[in-house]
Amino acid sequence: MTRTVLTLPGDGIGPEIIAETERVLERINERFGLGLQFEQGQVGGAAIDATGEPLPGETMEKAQRADAILLGAVGGPKWDHLEMAQRPEKGLLGLRSGLELFANLRPAFLYPQLASASSLKPEVVSGLDILIVRELTGGIYFGQPRGVRETDDGERQGYNTYVYSESEIRRIGRVAFEAARQRNGRLCSIDKANVLEVTRMWRDIMEELSADYPDVTLSHMYVDNAAMQLVRDPKQFDVIVTGNMFGDILSDEAAMLTGSIGMLPSAALNAEKQGMYEPCHGSAPDIAGQGAANPLATILSAAMMLRYSLGAEKAAVAIESAVSSVLDQGLRTADIDSEGTQRVTTREMGDAVLAAL
Amino acid sequence: MTRTVLTLPGDGIGPEIIAETERVLERINERFGLGLQFEQGQVGGAAIDATGEPLPGETMEKAQRADAILLGAVGGPKWDHLEMAQRPEKGLLGLRSGLELFANLRPAFLYPQLASASSLKPEVVSGLDILIVRELTGGIYFGQPRGVRETDDGERQGYNTYVYSESEIRRIGRVAFEAARQRNGRLCSIDKANVLEVTRMWRDIMEELSADYPDVTLSHMYVDNAAMQLVRDPKQFDVIVTGNMFGDILSDEAAMLTGSIGMLPSAALNAEKQGMYEPCHGSAPDIAGQGAANPLATILSAAMMLRYSLGAEKAAVAIESAVSSVLDQGLRTADIDSEGTQRVTTREMGDAVLAAL
Ligand SMILES: CC(C)[C@H](C(=O)O)[C@@H](O)C(=O)O
Ligand SMILES: CC(C)[C@H](C(=O)O)[C@@H](O)C(=O)O
Repeated sequence: MTRTVLTLPGDGIGPEIIAETERVLERINERFGLGLQFEQGQVGGAAIDATGEPLPGETMEKAQRADAILLGAVGGPKWDHLEMAQRPEKGLLGLRSGLELFANLRPAFLYPQLASASSLKPEVVSGLDILIVRELTGGIYFGQPRGVRETDDGERQGYNTYVYSESEIRRIGRVAFEAARQRNGRLCSIDKANVLEVTRMWRDIMEELSADYPDVTLSHMYVDNAAMQLVRDPKQFDVIVTGNMFGDILSDEAAMLTGSIGMLPSAALNAEKQGMYEPCHGSAPDIAGQGAANPLATILSAAMMLRYSLGAEKAAVAIESAVSSVLDQGLRTADIDSEGTQRVTTREMGDAVLAAL
Repeated sequence: MTRTVLTLPGDGIGPEIIAETERVLERINERFGLGLQFEQGQVGGAAIDATGEPLPGETMEKAQRADAILLGAVGGPKWDHLEMAQRPEKGLLGLRSGLELFANLRPAFLYPQLASASSLKPEVVSGLDILIVRELTGGIYFGQPRGVRETDDGERQGYNTYVYSESEIRRIGRVAFEAARQRNGRLCSIDKANVLEVTRMWRDIMEELSADYPDVTLSHMYVDNAAMQLVRDPKQFDVIVTGNMFGDILSDEAAMLTGSIGMLPSAALNAEKQGMYEPCHGSAPDIAGQGAANPLATILSAAMMLRYSLGAEKAAVAIESAVSSVLDQGLRTADIDSEGTQRVTTREMGDAVLAAL
């Protein structure tokens, strides 16, 4: 049985971090006899430059055929002047939506070796381990109608629609309850049910679902309070579930609590567990091409891919242990280095992971 | 000339913190001969209990007549089962919208005396002084259409509308540029212009406005990145301007960076500088009636009221100095106490401020 992994380097530091991750995956493929085949594709700004489209038809076809997708990052100032529909981000959003990758798993995990990188006090973040489950194919990101219109008095008016159907909420809710069941049994659903009807319905449906998960303790929190509580006492959380927009904001905030966003992977899964995997960080155009980027978030995303989409748990663990061991060795890219550690380049970090495998 | 101040204690700890603030205002009124007259009204859960409505007509009339309004806090579990339209929050939202209080000023300021209360490392937050300017009467909070409908396939679907017109963006933009001009000349506008059309227009209009403020440096940031940057390096910000929903989230996050949300005041102003003033914190039903609440955020809100709506800058400064002096004396309510300080009740804190005046 062969399985196909599509890699989409994208923009900025994307090609560099994907290159290191491909090397790791090839080694793992041999070692564990996984029968993986690799394909490559274009998305985002790179695809715009080559074809005029952020998500060329050919990339979408490859993505549909692939068992799993590994993405670097998209976007950059070069394409910022483009119309919404022609921007690099549309490539990413088109893949998420086209493949129905509704379940976005974003762990915020503090590596003990990197505890000092956090801007929070050590006692507030040591041992931090949160999983954010973000709905990824609905909500205000995709809601219709949207655009800019002219009102009766000749003014421009911009508008977007925040919309969720029952079934969309139910399916992401189930993913989150299952995840909480595998972890510490606590699920916190984030909404703005005191103001927004769509999130009032979200809250009701989470309550309904909780009857099927008696072993999981469900709580609710308003999004403004959640943004506060993540700063005040992030360790109160186990699993968080929320919609697309709130999930975008809170997962970045949670990731930054660790101080090492260059370390955090993410997964976006559909109902068939086909998935797209990418680092939590962006394309960092300011450091692109300098060999300064941290490839570990992408390498760890590949581990998530092996676990969730390719059924290769042992291979996933092997990668995760290798990453932990290079951290133990004191090797650090620029984003995570500190006194007493050894600064390495993107390529050297890749070499070290290969050596540790 | 007499001016009328309407106090609306509201729910939870609201009555206690308003009581102390009224004492302070009465003393200030005498001392500075301000000619203030005080009226009282009901809003939120307290108004629901008394009249069945979160914003009784009588309260709205008093509010319209008043020169300024001082609000405690609204909401609590007692009213959580109510329909959206009948909840305590509707009282607050009705006042904001009915009086067109579109400009919400939310400072996030670290009192040097309270530096250790922050969950962030001292070097990250010492000297923190951000002003968040939040649009308060538009956006998704008030957008139509909204509700829950049934789709063709018989599913419930919840929806809200995120909408801003040009003039709404322009007027809040001007407030923010003016504020930045009074401060350190840096304005950061927060949006999600890579995904949401309404915020793409927001960004364009901020750019247009900046031509009128050559002395202010305008920058833009995506909301997810802003949630991260507030944790990573909050001192990079001077003034932040954003819409109602993002402002709700980011201002609470920013407030919590100081570790002392019980200290932070806020103002909501309309075009005539009529204003409603309230602490940044909520009604804290868990500690209501125990004399444990911190009245300082409300007392400092009264100082903002004197400054912005009543033209009494000296009186405002007198209150702010008195608060600083009670902190210097080591007096702390439960939310901000630490080793070596003296724990006091709500009333004792009020007494101390009066004594310091
Ligand atoms: C690039 C952008 C469209 C995207 C999002 O908002 O979802 C990113 O911020 C993310 O979180 O993956
Ligand atoms: C109580 C609630 C409606 C309100 C809001 O969301 O605006 C509060 O969170 C605030 O920030 O003043």
